[in-house]
Amino acid sequence: MQIQVPTPILDDLKCRQNIALMAEKAHRYGLCFRPHFKTHQSRAIGRWFKRVGVQCITVSSVQMAQYFADEGWRDITIAFPVNPRQAAQYNLLAERVQLNILVTDVDALRQIIPFIRRQIGIFIKIDTGAHRTGVLPDDIATQAALLSMIEAAPMLNFRGFLTHAGSAYRARSAHQIKETHVQSIALMKKVADRWKAHYPHLIISVGDTPTCSVATDWQGVDEIRPGNFVTYDLMQVQIGACTFDRIALAVACPVVAKHSDRSEIVVYGGAIHLSKEHIELDGHSVLDEWTGLPKGTKIYGLPVRFDDQLRWQLPGQEGSYVRSLSQEHGVIVASPELFDAVQPGDLIGILPVHSCLTIDLSEQLYTPTGSVLETM
Amino acid sequence: MQIQVPTPILDDLKCRQNIALMAEKAHRYGLCFRPHFKTHQSRAIGRWFKRVGVQCITVSSVQMAQYFADEGWRDITIAFPVNPRQAAQYNLLAERVQLNILVTDVDALRQIIPFIRRQIGIFIKIDTGAHRTGVLPDDIATQAALLSMIEAAPMLNFRGFLTHAGSAYRARSAHQIKETHVQSIALMKKVADRWKAHYPHLIISVGDTPTCSVATDWQGVDEIRPGNFVTYDLMQVQIGACTFDRIALAVACPVVAKHSDRSEIVVYGGAIHLSKEHIELDGHSVLDEWTGLPKGTKIYGLPVRFDDQLRWQLPGQEGSYVRSLSQEHGVIVASPELFDAVQPGDLIGILPVHSCLTIDLSEQLYTPTGSVLETM
Repeated sequence: MQIQVPTPILDDLKCRQNIALMAEKAHRYGLCFRPHFKTHQSRAIGRWFKRVGVQCITVSSVQMAQYFADEGWRDITIAFPVNPRQAAQYNLLAERVQLNILVTDVDALRQIIPFIRRQIGIFIKIDTGAHRTGVLPDDIATQAALLSMIEAAPMLNFRGFLTHAGSAYRARSAHQIKETHVQSIALMKKVADRWKAHYPHLIISVGDTPTCSVATDWQGVDEIRPGNFVTYDLMQVQIGACTFDRIALAVACPVVAKHSDRSEIVVYGGAIHLSKEHIELDGHSVLDEWTGLPKGTKIYGLPVRFDDQLRWQLPGQEGSYVRSLSQEHGVIVASPELFDAVQPGDLIGILPVHSCLTIDLSEQLYTPTGSVLETM
Repeated sequence: MQIQVPTPILDDLKCRQNIALMAEKAHRYGLCFRPHFKTHQSRAIGRWFKRVGVQCITVSSVQMAQYFADEGWRDITIAFPVNPRQAAQYNLLAERVQLNILVTDVDALRQIIPFIRRQIGIFIKIDTGAHRTGVLPDDIATQAALLSMIEAAPMLNFRGFLTHAGSAYRARSAHQIKETHVQSIALMKKVADRWKAHYPHLIISVGDTPTCSVATDWQGVDEIRPGNFVTYDLMQVQIGACTFDRIALAVACPVVAKHSDRSEIVVYGGAIHLSKEHIELDGHSVLDEWTGLPKGTKIYGLPVRFDDQLRWQLPGQEGSYVRSLSQEHGVIVASPELFDAVQPGDLIGILPVHSCLTIDLSEQLYTPTGSVLETM
């Protein structure tokens, strides 16, 4: 493959290993593994999940549910609060798949109920600390209101309670992730205990890559929905969810200029290829140690070198990082070794801060062995 | 139009007015108007430029040049440092358009010269303070080296010097933008004076929306290449390049949940619709005044309400702002008025921080009158 423009390279070996490890973990703890497909958005990668026995999936939009339904997936949870404007789409999807949706708001549920014409499963979203959305664990009134509305709606079938422990993204070590996880599942258990008498088969569904990667206590949990682990990224390294060698995605960027006065390399590869997501070093993560950069440094990616097979070399380049991204340009602060090693026309790989957004910007992923994986 | 999902709404009246004003300004100062099409990436909007007499354009990639060449544009500058890996594409483009490319690095130029088979115009990029890329104004040695290589290359025709005064993005008022502009064009004039004896027809090309929007001193400048002004955005307001009422883009987002305990509204509309670009209030811009929010607040967009014609109401909602974006969710901190006024199922418009990235994430733009404008 002759790479001419910024090109996302998926290390298929690492990716399939990440999938196998998570599937094995779910199996070991007796958890239903319902991976979130919003990270990869690829039917080809979906097939790798099928091969390790996965049968039910999570997506973040109706469009994504349609894409994977077309590919034969028959049990799909849309893990996004029910959107009253998409009732017709939910009905169409529920004609061909076992569809689950999510609710967090009484008014949103009230609005959509009259338009639901197919049997649809429904989860109540619980906010265990992320404060993005969800019903608070102690908000019994809202939980009761939602449950009685669901009860009265002949087409809606209550499935259980679901959370996304987004607060795990504030962690800086596996230990801190585990603490968040323990708190989160304790809150979920409390909610479950409250309603179990009425709903003995209710499901407790928890998600997120950080907790699913490192936690070992799964008491009371029925289902996990991690997504990002399929490739991981720098943010997961910062949180403490994975080591660098688990990152399975790098964007290959042609070098177009070098500036020796400030030891910077300019690559073709910008915000429209990597996304504008960044990390700020805070002195508390392995990323600080690894890069050796001062607290407060903003990082838009880390450079790596490819070998002849387009697999990348770790441990990367100490002191080197992507300091800015504009629409098409990436500016890399380069260590003396990196600066001397590359010339215009060479490729530099950039490990992304947030692989979900990077893949969303890609139409295809390329593997080192030359396969092309289409994405949504 | 029944909006179901996050949908970018282009106020075509404002957009065409922005185009007309900039074309008129270029005309008034006797400047060649070569607008940057990377912001809108739309053949339909391109046609609006044709109607005000624009004949030559700027793009940021080979792919974008091909797209607009297909639409009949015949004079195109790719304002991105020459990429040695795309020589074949430059040749193909130069078969059908008057193509200009950009150079900043001696090694990159040396690599590509043997592969150029068509007549191509070339600009030398000058760094007047943005420090992204470009030759420093006082780096006579590099300028001379590039010029003599170009001179010796039969297929390359030196066109002039080009800069992007990216440092204008650090401004917080029209006055500060003008200061940056005056410094930038003074440096360009110095470079031009140095080489004018050898190249009496050299072009001085400057760009960027902030300076082109507010500057009134254009001595020595031949060409302007602004792009973002076509829609403007919150970043331009923060810089001091425009007022709120010039923003011609808002993403219509369905409300999916309300959280009264923290006066927050959750919308369907996230980083894959708006991009992860944010602004941090610093106490120095009109955005601070307008929002009334404390210094240090990070803003991912500002909410507006639509009228029945999908045009939005200004001055927006004091104290309201988008505080976070995840992949599909947007979380809006809402003033009491905004919080009470909207319900799940309603639409909220979000003025984007960076319209170039928002449009790059869109396949189509919708106008209030129901037109659909395809983008690249």
